[in-house]
Amino acid sequence: MIATDPGPHVPVSPRTANLAALLRALRAGPLSRTQLATRCGITKAAVSGLVTELSGRGLVRPAGLLAGHGRPSRLVELNAGSACGLALGVEAGRFSAVVTDLEGRVLAERTETADVAALGLHRSMDELGFLAGRVLDGERPVGVTVSVPGLVDSAAAVLRFAPTLRWRDAEIADLVAARLGLAADAVVVDNEANLGAVGESVAGAGAGVRELFYLSGGTGVGGGLVSGGAILRGARGFAGEVGHLPVDPSGERCPCGRVGCLETKAGLNAVLRAAAAPGDPLHDPALGVDGRVGLLKHRVSRGDRRAAAAVSELGFALGVAVVTVADVLDPDVVVLGGYFAALGRWLVEPVRRELSARPLAHEPSCRVEPSPLGTSAALRGAAHLATERLFADPTLVPFRPKPSETTAEAPV
Amino acid sequence: MIATDPGPHVPVSPRTANLAALLRALRAGPLSRTQLATRCGITKAAVSGLVTELSGRGLVRPAGLLAGHGRPSRLVELNAGSACGLALGVEAGRFSAVVTDLEGRVLAERTETADVAALGLHRSMDELGFLAGRVLDGERPVGVTVSVPGLVDSAAAVLRFAPTLRWRDAEIADLVAARLGLAADAVVVDNEANLGAVGESVAGAGAGVRELFYLSGGTGVGGGLVSGGAILRGARGFAGEVGHLPVDPSGERCPCGRVGCLETKAGLNAVLRAAAAPGDPLHDPALGVDGRVGLLKHRVSRGDRRAAAAVSELGFALGVAVVTVADVLDPDVVVLGGYFAALGRWLVEPVRRELSARPLAHEPSCRVEPSPLGTSAALRGAAHLATERLFADPTLVPFRPKPSETTAEAPV
Repeated sequence: MIATDPGPHVPVSPRTANLAALLRALRAGPLSRTQLATRCGITKAAVSGLVTELSGRGLVRPAGLLAGHGRPSRLVELNAGSACGLALGVEAGRFSAVVTDLEGRVLAERTETADVAALGLHRSMDELGFLAGRVLDGERPVGVTVSVPGLVDSAAAVLRFAPTLRWRDAEIADLVAARLGLAADAVVVDNEANLGAVGESVAGAGAGVRELFYLSGGTGVGGGLVSGGAILRGARGFAGEVGHLPVDPSGERCPCGRVGCLETKAGLNAVLRAAAAPGDPLHDPALGVDGRVGLLKHRVSRGDRRAAAAVSELGFALGVAVVTVADVLDPDVVVLGGYFAALGRWLVEPVRRELSARPLAHEPSCRVEPSPLGTSAALRGAAHLATERLFADPTLVPFRPKPSETTAEAPV
Repeated sequence: MIATDPGPHVPVSPRTANLAALLRALRAGPLSRTQLATRCGITKAAVSGLVTELSGRGLVRPAGLLAGHGRPSRLVELNAGSACGLALGVEAGRFSAVVTDLEGRVLAERTETADVAALGLHRSMDELGFLAGRVLDGERPVGVTVSVPGLVDSAAAVLRFAPTLRWRDAEIADLVAARLGLAADAVVVDNEANLGAVGESVAGAGAGVRELFYLSGGTGVGGGLVSGGAILRGARGFAGEVGHLPVDPSGERCPCGRVGCLETKAGLNAVLRAAAAPGDPLHDPALGVDGRVGLLKHRVSRGDRRAAAAVSELGFALGVAVVTVADVLDPDVVVLGGYFAALGRWLVEPVRRELSARPLAHEPSCRVEPSPLGTSAALRGAAHLATERLFADPTLVPFRPKPSETTAEAPV
């Protein structure tokens, strides 16, 4: 499981840490109190008290009996529906909101198309808050994670720069928290590619994988690494930002100031420009991102030469960048996400070919896979981190002994 | 502190984990039992028993009284001299061995020049074992870390490939353990650049830094990242291996199969070839690495044009590679180590200049510093990890109540 980094500013008491350890242990399935004691290294007497508290908070419930050598023990299990997490997504062309239970099952979701850059930051936050209110439908989430396409200073919870939205130094977490009536520390903002990496780790291409690099294709190109169960953030949260790796020394100048950056070759608009003449329907904004990528895919499938050449050039550029990423990070798997996922059948082979040009270092272990989650990877990861907050601190939900339990304990 | 990753194969009991927590807490200075209980989240009654055990193992000792509101409390402190760690180094031209106490103070050290590739693996291990025996002088280390210049599979404790030594799939940890009469799991082998990053983190340029990238110049070029207190290893321990990042698309072909790799521009021999004509004393193997680098430094200082141009070109190549590293990893600081450290005054500025060509992403926070530890960084890191083993499992040293304590407890 990928944990949010609680940072040094969120001390939890030893008791809370023990409650959290029990709750996390129950993710794998029902356990008896004795099993919980063994797994978590806590005395059985202490476990009983802690389970009572988790039960009073509604987070665990009885789950039948475990037959054993002596008398059967009572099992407890995670009550996945007792709390929910909220994932919010901001992209250049839409807002998204997803509510999940503690096991990541989607309880509600909504998407709304919008010209986010035109709306501006504050009206966008209003729209996002409104969308969140609709999917939450009166529920109070234990945590909220907002996915944004840009450089995020995760320690400060600030979006530093999102070129496609034209936002700078946007205090997203505070703005969302205010609109939802939540404490500021209940809302986390993270980069779309970091969250995509988390999503793939918990529910996509990353099963059994320790080191996963997620390469995200959109208007820009981003990347994120999950290493040993945690997002690699770097000093300011910019680690994995590979959109400006040099892939073509004779290429065009990038707005960043350098030449031949990956984004100049692999950003969606660059690929579409290479794939069709100006005025072609491929450039029609009314189709939306998904529509244009779908049309490109259709053309490559039916053998359109210009479209095929553009996608082939994209595959080569991705290959050059992935070799660098593999040199520096040595991942088990590189996942091609965002719009690259839809074109995966033409992109995976060129990337593998570049990797195999230096067999010593990269073969056989660095796999290359198209994202099975596609464009939903970031929201999937965001929802995971939103509920993860409860697994670090179960006291986030209030203690409320159920009436039935109170009755059962009172003399009849 | 940088921890060795104990991995899933080294379970420790909850009691051992508590002993370890107390021992680590004492690194910051003497503490009372009450303070230990608070810091470690362990009951005071349990702390007393654990301190008695640590004392019986010789790892802690009384350290006077702490005056407070009530009666003064007895302090305990780490007994730094109670155990030692051994760091061993293999380079193309020499073997090194350093013994340190639990606070990293050097107790003994020796270096021996040798043509390691000519000796071959097994005779080299004999030499290394002999050198280790001399510095240990009968002491038994709690852990041994061997620094090697090559790709290390740290999970398997195997050196996969060291081109300068011409070793492949060398089971270094087993070979060293057998020669020192230690259990195989007491010996760890790691890449020189990873260990250099650890050394800089604990005792060099990394004070107060969370994310440190160490770039190591030698015959080859390596790199290592310490991120949030741990080495970033990647899937197979190859993370940070930046010697084959492309820095010159029109450059020479590298033995790895690609063109213009960093190593073709920044490996010591390439720089020396650029700095002086064949036959020049700069190429005299008898000078050793340090001698040749010293001569190069001398020539640049006194204005030798060809030497200065070679070092300038080196600075540019390092800059191109560091920009890529900064894009992917976002470190707080990049430390120029190995032979780059000696040339630091001419290399730091060109690297900073390349970083500032993309101001948004890299300024102001990515610092560039020459290594203050120079060629000793890897051994410093190796010694740290060797003693670190005890801070993960204090039961590695035997329980032996001191005769004086036994007497004190017996009725007189």
